[in-house]
Amino acid sequence: MFTLIKIDSGARRGRLETPRGTVETPLFMNVATTAAIKGGVTAPELKALKCQTALCNAYHLHIRPGDGLIREMGGLHRFMSWDGPILTDSGGFQAFSLAKLRKVKEEGVYFQSHTDGRKIFMGPEESMRIQHNLGSDIVMAFDECVSNPAERGYVEDSVGRTTRWLVRCKEELERLGSRRPLMGINQGGVYEDIRVRHMNEIAGLDLPGYAVGGLAVGETKEDMFRVIEAVTPFMPVGKPRYLMGVGTPSDIIEAVARGIDMFDCVMPTRNARHATVFTSDGITHATNERYAKDEKPLDERCECPTCRNFSRAYIRHLFKAGEILAGRLTSQHNLYFYNALTERIRGAIDAGEFDAFRRENSLKLSRLSTDGETGADEF
Amino acid sequence: MFTLIKIDSGARRGRLETPRGTVETPLFMNVATTAAIKGGVTAPELKALKCQTALCNAYHLHIRPGDGLIREMGGLHRFMSWDGPILTDSGGFQAFSLAKLRKVKEEGVYFQSHTDGRKIFMGPEESMRIQHNLGSDIVMAFDECVSNPAERGYVEDSVGRTTRWLVRCKEELERLGSRRPLMGINQGGVYEDIRVRHMNEIAGLDLPGYAVGGLAVGETKEDMFRVIEAVTPFMPVGKPRYLMGVGTPSDIIEAVARGIDMFDCVMPTRNARHATVFTSDGITHATNERYAKDEKPLDERCECPTCRNFSRAYIRHLFKAGEILAGRLTSQHNLYFYNALTERIRGAIDAGEFDAFRRENSLKLSRLSTDGETGADEF
Repeated sequence: MFTLIKIDSGARRGRLETPRGTVETPLFMNVATTAAIKGGVTAPELKALKCQTALCNAYHLHIRPGDGLIREMGGLHRFMSWDGPILTDSGGFQAFSLAKLRKVKEEGVYFQSHTDGRKIFMGPEESMRIQHNLGSDIVMAFDECVSNPAERGYVEDSVGRTTRWLVRCKEELERLGSRRPLMGINQGGVYEDIRVRHMNEIAGLDLPGYAVGGLAVGETKEDMFRVIEAVTPFMPVGKPRYLMGVGTPSDIIEAVARGIDMFDCVMPTRNARHATVFTSDGITHATNERYAKDEKPLDERCECPTCRNFSRAYIRHLFKAGEILAGRLTSQHNLYFYNALTERIRGAIDAGEFDAFRRENSLKLSRLSTDGETGADEF
Repeated sequence: MFTLIKIDSGARRGRLETPRGTVETPLFMNVATTAAIKGGVTAPELKALKCQTALCNAYHLHIRPGDGLIREMGGLHRFMSWDGPILTDSGGFQAFSLAKLRKVKEEGVYFQSHTDGRKIFMGPEESMRIQHNLGSDIVMAFDECVSNPAERGYVEDSVGRTTRWLVRCKEELERLGSRRPLMGINQGGVYEDIRVRHMNEIAGLDLPGYAVGGLAVGETKEDMFRVIEAVTPFMPVGKPRYLMGVGTPSDIIEAVARGIDMFDCVMPTRNARHATVFTSDGITHATNERYAKDEKPLDERCECPTCRNFSRAYIRHLFKAGEILAGRLTSQHNLYFYNALTERIRGAIDAGEFDAFRRENSLKLSRLSTDGETGADEF
């Protein structure tokens, strides 16, 4: 499933085989939670945004329109018109972040739907069946995601349960006759020893890949990178490593430097809707007064469909006029930026220049752009 | 500018030459009021929706971002990235429908902006200069649009002023050195004699085209068609005839039958955002329960980008999940439907079968679709 091609200054260059084609790592996966990309981008359009893999969510799609319905419609790929690989998140994270009146038991999680309040039970078996129904190419384990900070005692109990759930996930997938790769998820809050012990436990299951979950959920950046540095040495070298839900451009560069291969984040589209734009000179705000008569594209070095066709002046006007086209144009730009960023990272590793790339870009890309005089004032 | 090719059962088949290419009539113009198509469709994408001409609005663009700014940015075509013809509405209609504290004087209209309340004066000269700055290919006269019903005395005064304004529009365009064709607008409420007298007056100015304005603003359908039937015999035969702001698919077929050549309407995109979809079987609602597991496209005979890629089940899901992609997909479908409808009308006239086309489609297309059992219940 995974070939590790090269390591350059800690950064790994790899290749991941999926039932729907081979993808290159480091990889950014484009979030399509409800089988739709936020901002009004269609799945077929993701190809032109250099997207290699889409990410959908088992919890959201189970609630609405229902994974059974999607199965009847021929699976998620056909439903959303995307023929590339799809990774599905297990619903573990959402059962904790969205659901009301949650009760965690050994068998799974009892909760109420965030949309209509109806009672739902989801355990490892249910999550596997949902992801199986969706027809995803990479299945994520059903885990408990504990928000930080959390009591040490609770975290210890929780990771024990997450390990037992992982075993049940693996067994259920086998029972379903699925050949889809299952990725285990490491948990343990910000406790390095628990993280390492848990990583060792789940590595013993010899799964095709492993994720680091439960980060970017309340802890500081320092804690996040401390945990990543603590746990990655215990992740199997020959298997893909996925840092869930992270992050800014510099987070991605810094995590790649620590040996991470896969990423996903809602930031490109969420920020886009609020006119926050990623560029090769740093972050900027499309509604800035200084763009009122600016004929240049959002990013002069960008080849995305937005930058090839539209000026900063036009996009600023669309935001000021309240046109939803504004959010679509910035969303497709930001998604392209993230996909192109990982492409540039891969190129830097291939060329043996990752460390120089990191030094040049890591700070710059997550800082305010300096191409105008008033940039720093507006945030 | 205009060649009348054929008349079939009252329907006219023509060809309109503009500075940006020749377009075929009957013609539906796609509304891009603020230099943006509602629903999140980009201007370059209009080509794939069979759009021949875009329509922008002088009032809206004067208020925001400013016609001077658009001129500095190289004009409207470059600003919105559309190289086909653009017709600009004069702002006359908006000065009456949107502006606050309006005062109509001989020199023009004093009013407050609908966005920020600032005081604005717009008369024939201002409107011509704005449309000149925008770089439009077809300029509309600045007129007074009176909502129906209106007192006969007021309407008589108003059309007198509209005629005097039209003379000033023509003179101002000449002063600007513009070669852009100016279309005069017929007014007169629902009073046939005033309509005819006004039409004869403005026909005397020998303009390149004429529009019927002030319809679909409160009167009944019967009154609307009565006025159209009264006035079209007095419109110059060899010049294009534009019915402003109309209407449903059957309104368009019926107006073509009465000798109208050009149309515009916000209905395709406005209805799309509320999940109302035009199909070759009639009108339907994309959120209908009966589409929950329907793999068919919105319209089985449609070749639009939405129907080529997505099912009714998927689009229904997008609306239920509140995804803005829903409105984009239905908007591009409805725009394609309107453009394809006028294409079918042109084909019917070419084939000498317009009357049969009208009998088959006029009622059907604006009625609820009958492809399901529960259609009629939901409206």
